[in-house]
Amino acid sequence: MTEVLAIGSFSDVDAAALRDDLGARIVDSLDSAAALHEETRATVRAIAFKGHATFDGALMDLFPALGLIANYGVGYDAIKVADAQTRSVAVTNTPDVLNDDVADLAVGMLIAQCRRMVQGDDHARSGAWADGQEFPLNRKMSGGRVGILGLGRIGREIADRLAAFKMELHYWSRGEKQTPGWTYHDDPVALANAVDYLVVALVGGPETEGMVSAEVLDALGENGVLVNISRGSTVDEVALIDRLEDGRLAGAALDVFRSEPGIDPRFAALDNVVLQPHQGSGTHVTRAAMGQLQRDNIAVFMAGRPLLTQVA
Amino acid sequence: MTEVLAIGSFSDVDAAALRDDLGARIVDSLDSAAALHEETRATVRAIAFKGHATFDGALMDLFPALGLIANYGVGYDAIKVADAQTRSVAVTNTPDVLNDDVADLAVGMLIAQCRRMVQGDDHARSGAWADGQEFPLNRKMSGGRVGILGLGRIGREIADRLAAFKMELHYWSRGEKQTPGWTYHDDPVALANAVDYLVVALVGGPETEGMVSAEVLDALGENGVLVNISRGSTVDEVALIDRLEDGRLAGAALDVFRSEPGIDPRFAALDNVVLQPHQGSGTHVTRAAMGQLQRDNIAVFMAGRPLLTQVA
Repeated sequence: MTEVLAIGSFSDVDAAALRDDLGARIVDSLDSAAALHEETRATVRAIAFKGHATFDGALMDLFPALGLIANYGVGYDAIKVADAQTRSVAVTNTPDVLNDDVADLAVGMLIAQCRRMVQGDDHARSGAWADGQEFPLNRKMSGGRVGILGLGRIGREIADRLAAFKMELHYWSRGEKQTPGWTYHDDPVALANAVDYLVVALVGGPETEGMVSAEVLDALGENGVLVNISRGSTVDEVALIDRLEDGRLAGAALDVFRSEPGIDPRFAALDNVVLQPHQGSGTHVTRAAMGQLQRDNIAVFMAGRPLLTQVA
Repeated sequence: MTEVLAIGSFSDVDAAALRDDLGARIVDSLDSAAALHEETRATVRAIAFKGHATFDGALMDLFPALGLIANYGVGYDAIKVADAQTRSVAVTNTPDVLNDDVADLAVGMLIAQCRRMVQGDDHARSGAWADGQEFPLNRKMSGGRVGILGLGRIGREIADRLAAFKMELHYWSRGEKQTPGWTYHDDPVALANAVDYLVVALVGGPETEGMVSAEVLDALGENGVLVNISRGSTVDEVALIDRLEDGRLAGAALDVFRSEPGIDPRFAALDNVVLQPHQGSGTHVTRAAMGQLQRDNIAVFMAGRPLLTQVA
């Protein structure tokens, strides 16, 4: 009897723990889950979910005994939470354990964009430097003006780090927050107008869809650099690429994309962007902690105890 | 009459300012300077120097009226200071204006090494990600133990930044310093033993030659990462490469090398290093400030006023 179903591409370590600790059956996709025999689906009480495909009410209805979807990752925008709520299905995520890694990568991407570090590595490695070619001067980051779009837990970690680079901190959030003197802006365009660097740390989902609009990018302007470690959905990507190509925006550093992993091929031709393969939380330590927290939520649910990190 | 001689490869902006503001004659190298006519050399009172070739007493003797060598850069190890002192030639450098940039690059290099950002950019850009290839998990930096070898002005800037990444700070310096609770070690091997990441921020020159020895690298160990933004001379480079090749050291991030720009070709084959073409201070803003400070030292010298940043 399958009480716990795991859906997605899990690491060997996580897959073994799902089987050993929770007796989980593992399938690779929502389609495979939907194709399970009706009798198998009928007994599933908890689903460990990993992925970005949409998990909606029609799929939930295939599991009549379902009480929990435990998401792997802090962003749970793939799961239709309203659908879950009407079906009394709880949803958990894996917050906080990944904040440091995502913030580290955001800062590293901003430095790499300003200092052209990917090009620098190639200059040294290819022999261009040894051949006497000059590496062009680039851009000072410390002391600049930076805006954090979305001052949640990850945004705060990014801001704390950038403050140590003597940067002038600005932010937008759904409401003003207690900060050490950072400047609040009540709309994203005003924020973009005030800064040289804009770091997107929003949640995903319909509320933030396209929030980094053409207007925001134009406010950021020709000296502006966009950093996105949140979700590709937050950015008008066509407007972004247009501006990166023609110089209306100075540069970008992106860990997330609209159509990842099949990213727009125009990105690959740009010299003023740092690209990363959605690896914000991609360290051994953090991915292990995320898997553990996902399983812990399922374990307490099965034991009838309170969920650890419930989002709906 | 040439009273100010500029030696080195100056930017167009700096070259124009040297000529316009100081009436300088510019030559490309110490060899070219030595080859100037004796009558020209006889009138030179100040030299604006940019480069890493050795400027010793024999060369100074070619300029009998010389009173100042104004170095471009904070590191003046190419200038034989003892030789200058016995000839009553003052030496200035360009400190502080470059601290932020060098510290930014050091932090960026450490993040890039841990998170394999150069490989990440290639994974996204090459289409490997789109083709469904997994990007391997990597290493969490925040919260790690970091040692700063040389807690001067640049080392302090690096430490202040890394403290915001919740890192446990250790350092070696010629003496213990006032710090916010960082741990002092009285020898480099003890420092390397205590940390996962070792950032070299030493001055160059004979005192620090090979200070990052095979013994220090072995103390850093197979989980250790070396970052060097100081001078290639501080590291036993053969010992370093041997250990990077066979896994006795986890990785390195290097902006400086023994034989730069003609770096050891073994570096280019390593996947566990981030290489940069000695661009620590390489931003438009900072290089302009360095050029200005070099010229300002010459201007006050020619006016008989006190030097701004005299090192000897």
